[in-house]
Parts: sequence; C-alpha cells; structure tokens
Amino acid sequence: MSEVEKPKKATLIAWSDELDKIYPVLILATTAAAYDVEVTVFVTFWGLLAFKKNGRGITGKNWMTKMLSFMRRGGTDKLKLSKMNMGGMGPWMMKKIFKAENVPTLDSLIQVALESGVKFIPCQMTMDAFGLKREDLIDGMEDPAGASTAIDVALESQINWFI
Amino acid sequence: MSEVEKPKKATLIAWSDELDKIYPVLILATTAAAYDVEVTVFVTFWGLLAFKKNGRGITGKNWMTKMLSFMRRGGTDKLKLSKMNMGGMGPWMMKKIFKAENVPTLDSLIQVALESGVKFIPCQMTMDAFGLKREDLIDGMEDPAGASTAIDVALESQINWFI
Amino acid sequence: MSEVEKPKKATLIAWSDELDKIYPVLILATTAAAYDVEVTVFVTFWGLLAFKKNGRGITGKNWMTKMLSFMRRGGTDKLKLSKMNMGGMGPWMMKKIFKAENVPTLDSLIQVALESGVKFIPCQMTMDAFGLKREDLIDGMEDPAGASTAIDVALESQINWFI
Repeated sequence: MSEVEKPKKATLIAWSDELDKIYPVLILATTAAAYDVEVTVFVTFWGLLAFKKNGRGITGKNWMTKMLSFMRRGGTDKLKLSKMNMGGMGPWMMKKIFKAENVPTLDSLIQVALESGVKFIPCQMTMDAFGLKREDLIDGMEDPAGASTAIDVALESQINWFI
Repeated sequence: MSEVEKPKKATLIAWSDELDKIYPVLILATTAAAYDVEVTVFVTFWGLLAFKKNGRGITGKNWMTKMLSFMRRGGTDKLKLSKMNMGGMGPWMMKKIFKAENVPTLDSLIQVALESGVKFIPCQMTMDAFGLKREDLIDGMEDPAGASTAIDVALESQINWFI
Repeated sequence: MSEVEKPKKATLIAWSDELDKIYPVLILATTAAAYDVEVTVFVTFWGLLAFKKNGRGITGKNWMTKMLSFMRRGGTDKLKLSKMNMGGMGPWMMKKIFKAENVPTLDSLIQVALESGVKFIPCQMTMDAFGLKREDLIDGMEDPAGASTAIDVALESQINWFI
C-alpha cells in the first residue's frame, strides 16, 4: 500500500476519582502511548476531582459545591479506594504494596503520560457543576470541552473505555 | 468513492442504576445521536431499575424480587448516587446543582434520546430474574432481547462502552 | 472478495471481583465466543480475586497481602454484590433467583468459556502486588502478562469493554 498508516487512537473516559480506578486509567494510557497510540483521556464527573492540584483546599462557588469539595478533597494525595477503603487504611496499604513492587506513583504516571503526549481533557459540564476553575486542576491538561469532543475522538478510536 | 458512507454506531451497556452513571449514559447517547450516530443502549442488571416507570410501586413475582423492588424502587425519581449518597442528600444536591447549571433532567434526556432515535433494549434475562414486566418499564423502549443482540450490534459499533 | 474474512475479536478487562460484575463478563464472553468471536479477558486488580481457586485460604507474601486475602477471600463462592450486598444475603438471594431462572452458575460459565476458547489472562502486576501465585488461580488461565498485552489485543478488537 502506498498510503501511510494512520496512527491508532485510544479514548479513555475517566469517570471515577478512586485510587483503584485512576491507576488503570493511567497505566493503560501510558502503556498505549508507549505503543505510539494517540491517547485522549476525557476526565468527567468524579474523575475530575482526582486531577485537582494537591492541597488546593476548598473549591466551589456556592455552599453545596464547597461542601462537596470539603467532603471529597480530591487531588492524588486524597483518593479513596472503591472497595476496602477502611477509613483510609486501604489506600495507605495499597500505596505501600505498590511501592514495594516498584509500581510508579499516580503523580509520576501523570508526568509520564503528559510527556508521552497523552491529552487530558477536563469535562466542561463537570467543571461548571462542581464550580471548578482551570487553576484548581493540575498543570498540563487541555482546555475544557464538552461531550461532543469525547464522541468525536471516540468515533476515531480503536480502543474506547469507560473507567 | 462511489459507496455511500455507512452510518457510525455506538453501543452503550447501561449496567448501573445510579444517578451518576445514568447521566453519562444519557448524555453520551444523546450527544452521539446528535452527531447522526446510531445509538443502542442495552439496559441490563441494575440498569433496568432506572428505566422503571416512576411510582410503579412494588414489582416482582416472588418474595425475593418483591423485596428487591421495595429496597431499590427504581425509576428516575428514586436513583441514588454511587458515592456521596448521604442517605438521599447527595442526589438531592446533585439535582439542585445540575438544575442551576441548566443540565437537563434525566426524564428530559430520555425524551430527547427517544426522539433522536436512540434505541433502549431491555435485557430479557434481567427482566426474568427481577420479575419485571414490559409495562413496568418506561414507554418507548424496544422489545427485550438477550446478550447475543448486544454482541451483534456491538460488533458493528465504532464506540462500545460498559457503564 | 477473495480474502478470507478475519475473525472478529473482543477484549474484556475484568477489573472487579463482584458477583454482579463477573456475571456480565462471563455472559458477554461466552455469548461472543458462541458467535465465533475471539475473546480475551484480561483479569486485573480486584478481578483477579474472583479467579482464585475456591477454598484456597489465605494467600499473599506479607502481612498486608495476607490480611487483604483474609478480608476479601476471593473465589466464585465468596463474591459480594457491589450493591445490596446486605452482609451476604444479597449474593445468596441473587444466586437463588438466578438458579430459579436457569441462569448458569459462575463456575459453569467459566467452564463454558474455557471450552469455547476464551482466553483469561491474569495481570502480572496485580499478581505481584497481591502476592498471588499461578497455583492460587483456577486452572485453564493463560500465562500472566502485562498491560502491553492488553493494549496489543485491544487494538485489534472490534469490541472493548472495561467492566
């Protein structure tokens, strides 16, 4: 064939903010990127809380969104496990186990992902609903966009996952 | 090319009955439909409870399925959040936040989906297991079908999501 | 066309160990296999616990992984429901309801899957993290592999699901 092969694409919808769901998002994203797959992570709903800057404190624009940010801090330091959370002991143990196995931390996986060209797109509707500002989120993310952007890139992707 | 481009397809498996999972199902389905994507939503397991008619009361055919329907009412009015449910305060807050942001209600999203040609297929095995009758579910859904139908349409779809 | 049609492929990432998530994994996998789809199930994170041999007892290589195996036994006999678990009454009821509807048990679905050529690949990173050995898992699974194997087969698949 004379045509140049088009790059393969993967789109991950990162819906959850839990440690045990953010790990697969980042491991699959970085692994795919290492295979020269063009990876887009559309970060929506609870997922956006995981991409808040650590130590950002209370965010939101009214008492409800402020209360939500108080109860669910967000940032990679404060993530819970979806199972076996045991009041924070679960995530502590999981991080310890992962460290012993030389599994990279979430922060270093995010760094690797960004350096490999993985695009993290914050969901505009979620930002509006949770009263999150661009500066509440980690550096290196793309401009916020809507579901139509997610559909657009998903239609061109060989791999689609909702995580 | 002389061939007419075939329409793109998306298949969503709606497995969960929670407010925060039904929202992405409906937002992604309606957005894709607005892009002329042929969307099928295969509604299975807990997901089917979200598509019960509101105020349908106790359903089921034996004490176990009746008890299940009592403990998990179903219908868009009664959905919980998968996280931060806080005894019903979470869903109440979420609906309030969404209303303030002009996010459509679940009922209006379902209406838009149906009008855009999104097909909602109830899972036959789930209906049998939960003792749900066709008239327990909202109007406008397709005839119940099995997993083979889901596989069939999924194989032809550019986008597949399990939500 | 003179070309022989290539077999279709489906890749399921089985991330969860709950009864109500393992069921869709196995029903979708066996149904797809019955359609001559080549099915790969990449079993990762909590999912691997569901594929421990029943009655395997405490597994793990240090106090943390041993404690995890004590609190979350694994094996098809011990799976919880993600919702309505009610201290074990939920899974008991669900199994009873399924039996009345002639839904096959998990064990027989696994057997059918293996006989239909479904490949179950244990995630190496999870095995290391949880201190699981090959002999802790059910017979018939493939050799453990990493995320790159999952990406590899997912890129060739018409259907990808993260469950």
